[in-house]
Amino acid sequence: MTESFSTLRVNANRMHDSFIHLALIGATGDGGVSRVTFSEAHLAARNWLRTEIENSGLEFHMDGAGNHSALLACNNKNAPTILLGSHLDSVPNGGRFDGALGVVAALEVLRTVKENRIKLGVKLEAIDFTDEEGTLVGLLGSAALAGRLHPEALKNPRGGREDLIAGMNRAGLSEAGIFKAARSKGSLAGYLELHIEQGKRLERAGFNIGVVTAIVGIRSYRLSFIGRADHAGSTLMEDRLDAGLGASAFTLAAREIVMRDFPNCVVNIGKMDFAPGVFNIVPLRVDVSLEFRSPDADQFAELDGALIECAKLEAERFRLDLRIEFLGGHAPSAMSENMQQAFMNSCDTLGLTHMSLVSGAIHDAQSLNGICPIGMIFVPSVDGASHAPRELTKWEDCVNGANILLQIALTLGSG
Amino acid sequence: MTESFSTLRVNANRMHDSFIHLALIGATGDGGVSRVTFSEAHLAARNWLRTEIENSGLEFHMDGAGNHSALLACNNKNAPTILLGSHLDSVPNGGRFDGALGVVAALEVLRTVKENRIKLGVKLEAIDFTDEEGTLVGLLGSAALAGRLHPEALKNPRGGREDLIAGMNRAGLSEAGIFKAARSKGSLAGYLELHIEQGKRLERAGFNIGVVTAIVGIRSYRLSFIGRADHAGSTLMEDRLDAGLGASAFTLAAREIVMRDFPNCVVNIGKMDFAPGVFNIVPLRVDVSLEFRSPDADQFAELDGALIECAKLEAERFRLDLRIEFLGGHAPSAMSENMQQAFMNSCDTLGLTHMSLVSGAIHDAQSLNGICPIGMIFVPSVDGASHAPRELTKWEDCVNGANILLQIALTLGSG
Repeated sequence: MTESFSTLRVNANRMHDSFIHLALIGATGDGGVSRVTFSEAHLAARNWLRTEIENSGLEFHMDGAGNHSALLACNNKNAPTILLGSHLDSVPNGGRFDGALGVVAALEVLRTVKENRIKLGVKLEAIDFTDEEGTLVGLLGSAALAGRLHPEALKNPRGGREDLIAGMNRAGLSEAGIFKAARSKGSLAGYLELHIEQGKRLERAGFNIGVVTAIVGIRSYRLSFIGRADHAGSTLMEDRLDAGLGASAFTLAAREIVMRDFPNCVVNIGKMDFAPGVFNIVPLRVDVSLEFRSPDADQFAELDGALIECAKLEAERFRLDLRIEFLGGHAPSAMSENMQQAFMNSCDTLGLTHMSLVSGAIHDAQSLNGICPIGMIFVPSVDGASHAPRELTKWEDCVNGANILLQIALTLGSG
Repeated sequence: MTESFSTLRVNANRMHDSFIHLALIGATGDGGVSRVTFSEAHLAARNWLRTEIENSGLEFHMDGAGNHSALLACNNKNAPTILLGSHLDSVPNGGRFDGALGVVAALEVLRTVKENRIKLGVKLEAIDFTDEEGTLVGLLGSAALAGRLHPEALKNPRGGREDLIAGMNRAGLSEAGIFKAARSKGSLAGYLELHIEQGKRLERAGFNIGVVTAIVGIRSYRLSFIGRADHAGSTLMEDRLDAGLGASAFTLAAREIVMRDFPNCVVNIGKMDFAPGVFNIVPLRVDVSLEFRSPDADQFAELDGALIECAKLEAERFRLDLRIEFLGGHAPSAMSENMQQAFMNSCDTLGLTHMSLVSGAIHDAQSLNGICPIGMIFVPSVDGASHAPRELTKWEDCVNGANILLQIALTLGSG
């Protein structure tokens, strides 16, 4: 049966129309989009998707976590579902492709299957997961769907509890409702995601498709270096307890540690908040936003220890106090080997080149690790740019990715 | 005539009542006050002073720059004025003594002269200068009174143009009005200010009074380190252009430069603003709030050059762009030698010990440098703390300072 599907393709023009319409929602004027979770632009994009689903004759569904889905049934009411998807939320001043491509492609796969009246042995579902990027919590919708959301994640979210509550109110969600989004065991036959690489490896190697072998683990901390507020003119340099010095020294040292001892890992200090934060007062307190990632669990624990030890040493060196607040994280996730093989077969069927790689970015796929087989592919990012307005993937690469997603859905759904 | 004044003292209880009432306005609950310029608390403190002046039977005056004064006339309508004063605005979460002591003591000097019906050959004026601390501009009221406010200072103020305009509107001031506050040449016989030291030198040396020889010069810059926003997971460490690294390296290096090569100077990085400022994006841009001070003009220029050169080198080292925005400054100011001598004589008359020192903090006095003879004294700060809630000067030291201010006003006014 697979043989007969090998010539089927998504409707690239229709998918392009959808992609362009979506890219205008929250457009920042410099080629990017700002659709942080439950912002006005994000809510508009969610409404757009609902209309797009309904106009396609697909069934619309929203669960308690605010995940929006298109559903395509099959003859067997009890058949499991193959879930395809990604997310519509973006980082502030992000790009048009991150998440959006995967949602649009998943929808296009369902539209293609539907209009070709293909009978599969599984249900298909194209999903937009809530708050993947972590403006509020991170992987919120996918973790809730997988039944893995920890109540603590809503109590002390990395974007702050107030912003979470305000956002939930805007989207009409409740905490109890979010936990009700959990799917029953065995209802999912697999989760498949198309995403942009957000790195330079495919472009450098000249390959069409990246087959993801694992997603890195990620942890975030708020490290508060605490000194003393003093007059910045009349206090001698040697008498100061300057919180900015500890934060700065840690920032430089963390990078050194990773580049020297953990070449497969990355670390980011994305923000420092200075208090009181004025020209003429020695900084009392600097809150450092720390995030780091590793593809390997053992190495991850070692890196965690090294960074926290480094923060302690730098605080001590400048006679500062240090408060360490763990904000959450995810373990590294291996992709299903069967899914990896199926993706490679689909690439071979369509004559597309492919390479295996680790995802340095987190993705909703990892929430479903262990719940159902998960698989993920990347398409090349021009110059590796992402989380920025200059994020770009050539349209032919986007279409290639959507066609691979179609092929694997057909293969798995008819197998 | 001086002889007969040597037993006169301010009314310490009345001054204490005034000081305590003032300290409650904008009180932060931890012993400090927050009265940033033209905030609700600052406007309330200004109203309080007006009432206090009027209740004392002194004439109230407000000029176009919002400076509030108590006036005490003399028999000669054309006599010049001895100006005594300081400021009621504070830094955010500042202390009760900075500025407030000088205003309350100046008012108390006028009340004491008035109730003792002392006839002087000069007018006396106790003034609260607008925006000394630089939340908006810095030394705004005193520069305007001295006729030295540069129009550029209002166009690109260090607190931002929007905040300045909003504050001026709340206080009922106009730009044209501010420039009209300039006093005519020869109208001032001198400016005298009592202030807390905001350092540890008097306390360490065990002296009652510090006679200021000079006020340091101060300059501020906004240095913007500009890199590239990239995904913090999928971008390899060596591919990043991380603005936070340049800002951090500069912060550490600036301190090294000052401590090694400029032991009489100080530098402060009071704030860094990260853009876009989220966990999972490599910082695109970090704006660094830089301020540095020197008591000597030549050394000041040298330090300026060294710091800017350092910022350039650190930007280059991390492949970042650097934008340098000069936000303003003041040259170092020497105090009048006659005033210094008069202060020392007054200390000797009252049996108070004294030492000469440089002011590491800027003060309104420097605005009047060259306009009239200026003099300034310090009283000891407990543990040197200032610009913070734990700022403290023993009440007997406050009273000592006020009595010296009274003595010198009587001496100069009857001389």
